[in-house]
This record gives sequence, structure tokens and C-alpha cells, in this order.
Amino acid sequence: MKTLGYAAQNPQDPLAPFTFERRALRDNDVAMDVLYCGVCHSDLHQARNDWGFSRYPMVPGHEIVGRVTAVGSKVTRYQVGDAVAVGCMVDSCQVCDQCRKGEEQLCREGNTQTYNDRDRVTREATQGGYSKQLVVREDFVLRVPDGLDLSKAAPLLCAGITTYSPLRTWNVGPGSRVGVVGLGGLGHMAVKLAVGLGATVTVLSRTADKRIDALDLGADALLVSSDAQAMKAAANSFDLIIDTVPVKHDLKPYMPLLDVDGTLVLVGQVGPIDEFSSIPLLLGRRRIAGSPIGGIAETQEMLDFCGKKNILPECEMIRMDEINHAFERMERSDVRYRFVIDLATL
Amino acid sequence: MKTLGYAAQNPQDPLAPFTFERRALRDNDVAMDVLYCGVCHSDLHQARNDWGFSRYPMVPGHEIVGRVTAVGSKVTRYQVGDAVAVGCMVDSCQVCDQCRKGEEQLCREGNTQTYNDRDRVTREATQGGYSKQLVVREDFVLRVPDGLDLSKAAPLLCAGITTYSPLRTWNVGPGSRVGVVGLGGLGHMAVKLAVGLGATVTVLSRTADKRIDALDLGADALLVSSDAQAMKAAANSFDLIIDTVPVKHDLKPYMPLLDVDGTLVLVGQVGPIDEFSSIPLLLGRRRIAGSPIGGIAETQEMLDFCGKKNILPECEMIRMDEINHAFERMERSDVRYRFVIDLATL
Repeated sequence: MKTLGYAAQNPQDPLAPFTFERRALRDNDVAMDVLYCGVCHSDLHQARNDWGFSRYPMVPGHEIVGRVTAVGSKVTRYQVGDAVAVGCMVDSCQVCDQCRKGEEQLCREGNTQTYNDRDRVTREATQGGYSKQLVVREDFVLRVPDGLDLSKAAPLLCAGITTYSPLRTWNVGPGSRVGVVGLGGLGHMAVKLAVGLGATVTVLSRTADKRIDALDLGADALLVSSDAQAMKAAANSFDLIIDTVPVKHDLKPYMPLLDVDGTLVLVGQVGPIDEFSSIPLLLGRRRIAGSPIGGIAETQEMLDFCGKKNILPECEMIRMDEINHAFERMERSDVRYRFVIDLATL
Repeated sequence: MKTLGYAAQNPQDPLAPFTFERRALRDNDVAMDVLYCGVCHSDLHQARNDWGFSRYPMVPGHEIVGRVTAVGSKVTRYQVGDAVAVGCMVDSCQVCDQCRKGEEQLCREGNTQTYNDRDRVTREATQGGYSKQLVVREDFVLRVPDGLDLSKAAPLLCAGITTYSPLRTWNVGPGSRVGVVGLGGLGHMAVKLAVGLGATVTVLSRTADKRIDALDLGADALLVSSDAQAMKAAANSFDLIIDTVPVKHDLKPYMPLLDVDGTLVLVGQVGPIDEFSSIPLLLGRRRIAGSPIGGIAETQEMLDFCGKKNILPECEMIRMDEINHAFERMERSDVRYRFVIDLATL
């Protein structure tokens, strides 16, 4: 079917309306009207080819909430009218050890990204959620639990699962002491989800400006990383620090904050890490790790958890034609905390 | 009691004979004649003040095997004539959470090092195993199991436990795929211990020169890190890589070798880590960690394990007066794989 979206045609120009073809339903496909789509920092990186592998035209968007309009003949779990969601991936090999474990994000062949990738069957470009319609393999469609506000749920599909997955990997629960570095789209979800899981949560920030915001989000405290005395007093006091900062930055101040066997997990920065010393690793058996999104089963678990606890991102709703302005504001961190496109405006 | 050792008097001069006082037995102390003492690379660093906190005169040595000559009135586990051992630490607070967990190496107050430290009671300098006698608190004395060759056991007390502890922390056993970077004092023990635990073990080396040595030590394979094709073929094939290299070096080639959730654990290098990218961490949820020695209970477990499996370091026995020459040879990695001083020669 023909559908309308907003696409980047090259790294320089603003996104603009773009009509393109969605594939005809395969027997294991779900078709949906896109209702809302979150605006992730990586949409901007990809539109501008910051990572060097962009293909154009490109319709970004991988935080998608929609409503089912048609299902293929072999689809069993969804029917027309269901509230559904799609995240960063739309396919994987489904037979490797990682896929069989439900870790499709770590598929040995590489998962198929929602946009700026190739369909595994036809090799046609995949196109994302800045569009009116979407067709996705049933196995990569999530169910939005009843009661979760559809207009706010979209950012859970990337910002949510990217922070929920490490919380689960490192067994965060009541009694856990979690630090969150960076209070943007990912960071504010890390706070809400860690609080929801019962942890004691501290936001780490260079200045005290964000204290009220941090506490409003549910954090127990804000630790000012430029306050040497406070940082010293906080030594060995975290089990897990989720670092959501998307640019190269100094990790050294955070390492001594970890307790024995504690982990600093990077979820935002892609690229070379600033130099740091092995000494805090050696002395406290501390670790540095990375974590990508999560698997499909874990993403559904996260959505269900958010439904049960009524955990939702803080969103600023925009019209589709405001996307380029939203990109500009996002670049200067002028958003609390995630833009969401209302596709009814397209 | 007066005892004789070899000491550094300053960072420049060679080690030379030095007579000094060992403390009188406290009621919880064990006195021993030192039989053998391993020569660790850190002895050289400390003698030369490479880490900036050396105090002189300094008697190095923390891989110690001895025989009990006297015990304090409250000592219950050792008696005169027992074959015993002492490693890198001789005391800790004994009341913090780490000490209570048997992780004295991670004592919240800092453990007391066997040499170049201060006794917790008198604040007198601690002096190490390059000496004829030693007095140590019972709780930090290990038992050498029957049948373990005393003349070779000494390096287990540092090189052994430093590599055994991460193998245990990361649950290495049958089916585990372990890589070892650096085939020196620590690396050769990592190979033997990982093989002993049932893992499949690969030595990683820049050149193929060490293939026969690696296989002789029990490794299953040698992977040449300068062979791009072999390295690519080995992607995602290790659960744990123990990196024993004692100097700053490039970690980038090793990260893609780790499988999902795999860990590169640093046990040798002390100081700034060479820059690397977050991408392999993110894409495979990989980790970088550090690990110090091990606790007293784990050290005893390691000695008992080595006794049961007859695992021993490869040693080159030297006389006490050969120590300065041994330091020179160690600096150019001219030792397979550990010098051990026969204290009968002092």
C-alpha cells in the first residue's frame, strides 16, 4: 500500500513529506496505523549520517504505538483494533542461540532495524514510524497493556527498554542502589523504572540545577559530580550506575562510586571511551559494560510492568511538521524529556 | 627476634643483605622459617618506587612458603613443623562486610600488605619474604596441602590466586571458553588453573612463537592476535579473557573475541587503560573488569585444588644473592615462568 511519511533525503536537508510503498501483508504480518512515534536521539544521528551507514530516502522512527488494521492469515496473537507497539527491530534470524533465548537484539546475523536497514525477504529498505502506516512481522509486534496512555507509551519502545534491560540484567530490585548519569530521554526512564523496581535511585549531575526534576521523577537524591566532598562521601555506594550520556565524557569520577563488584553500564555513548585507570577496577573488582536494547519478550515484560505500575515517560507532543524544529531543540537538550509525534497531524 | 633478609634501601641501588627485627609472637601469631619465596613483578615495581608509595628499607616478597617454628598461645590451627604459606596480605580489619564475607583483599579499611605497609597494632613497617623468618597473624596463614612440592608452591600465593580468583568469580568450569593474554608468571598460572577447572583454554599472543609453550602448559590452542583472519574467525568465542599483561596495551583487538555477556578481566596492568570503543560493549553486552588477588578462604581453596590436581607453577630456582640479576632478567621477560628464591642460600 502507499503511505505517507516524513523522510530525510540526504544528510543536510530537513525532513520532508515523502510518499512510499509499504509491503503487502505476508501471512505472518501485522499492519497498523501509526498513532504516535517517539523522537529518539539516534533518529537525528541516522538522518544526518553521523554513524556513516545511512541510506536515503530514510523515514526514521523506532518508538511506535499503533492500532492494528489488518493481519496476515497465520497471525494468531493480534486482531484488528488491538493497541500495539513496535520498537527498534522488526526481524531477526529466529534460529540462532540468541534468538532462541529471546535475545533477538543480539541475533548472530544481526537483527533487522526498524528503519535504515533491509527487509530479510525482499532486501527492500525498512522505513520507520514517522509515517501513517506500518507493516511488521507478528513476532516483533508488542501489545500495549490496557490502561497505558497510548499518547505517552511510545518512548518506552527504545528509551524504556534500553534502560529496563540493564536493570534486569544486573538484577536490580529492592535494596539495590542505582545511579543514573544524564537526565534526558533515557535517563529519566532509568530513574522511573529503577524506582518502580524498588531500588534506591540517585541522579548524578554536574550541577545542582536538576535536583527538583530528579526528585519529581521519583529519585531519592541528586549527587552533584562537581562537589568533590559529596563524591568522596559517596564512594562505594552504588551497585549499578546507568550512564545515559550520548557523547564522549569522563568516566573517571564515577568508578569509585561503585561498590565491590559494581557495574557502570553505558547505554548512550557510541564510540571511543575517554581514558580511565584500571586501578578502581582492580581494587573493587568493578566493571564497565555496555547494553543495547532488550529482546522482544523482555520488551513485552517492560510494557506490562509499566502498565501495572503506571510508569510513563514525560512527553512533549508535537505535530509531524514540527519535527525539524524538534531535532534542533533536541540537539541543545531542550526537551523534557521526549518528543512524541502525533501522527494524526500528518 | 633478629632476622636476615635482602632489602632495597632506596629506588636506585640493588637489593642487599639487611638485618632487622621481627616482632615478638603475639598470642594469635605464627612464626615460620621461610623456605621459598617467589619473585613477583610487583616486587620490582615496589623496590624501585614505580607506584610512588614505597618506604625504605623494604624487604620484598609475598609468595612465601615456610615451616612453622612457633605459635602464639591462642593459635589453634597450626603447630610447629607444619608446612604453611603467606601471600600478599597479613592482616585486615576482620569486622567489615568484606572481611566477614571472606574477601579480606577488599577490606573496607584496606588490607595490610605483607611488605611496604604498616602493622595494624604497632604501625611498624611490614617486611616480606626475602628473609629467613616471618611472623604472621594466624588468620592470614595458609596451609600447604600434603604432597604439593614446597619448592614450587610459592608462586601460587600471588600469581596463582590472582588468576584463580577471577576464574571462580566468573564461574569458569567445564564448557567455559577462556582466553589468556600474556604468558608470564600470571598468564601461565591462568592457563594451568583454567585447564584444571575443565575449561577450554586459548593463549592469545602477538606471534606464533609461544604455541609449543602454550600447548605444553595444557592450553588447547594459541591464537595469534596479529593474524587478522584468525582473529575474525574467533569473534564471539570466549566467555572470559584474563588479561595478565602488566603494561599499558591495546585492548581493542580482544573485545570482539568475547561472546555475549563475556568479560575481559584485567589482573596485570595498573594505571591508565588504552582508549577503546563502547561499540563492542554495547553490541554484545560485553564487560571489562578488574580483579585483585583473592580472600584467605579462596586462597586456601586454590591451594587445596592445586594439591588435588597437582597443579604447580613452572619455576626457576635462584639463590638469594642472584635476586638483582633475576630482576634484570624479569624486566626483559627472560623467565619461564617464575623465579623462586631458595632461602636456604641466605
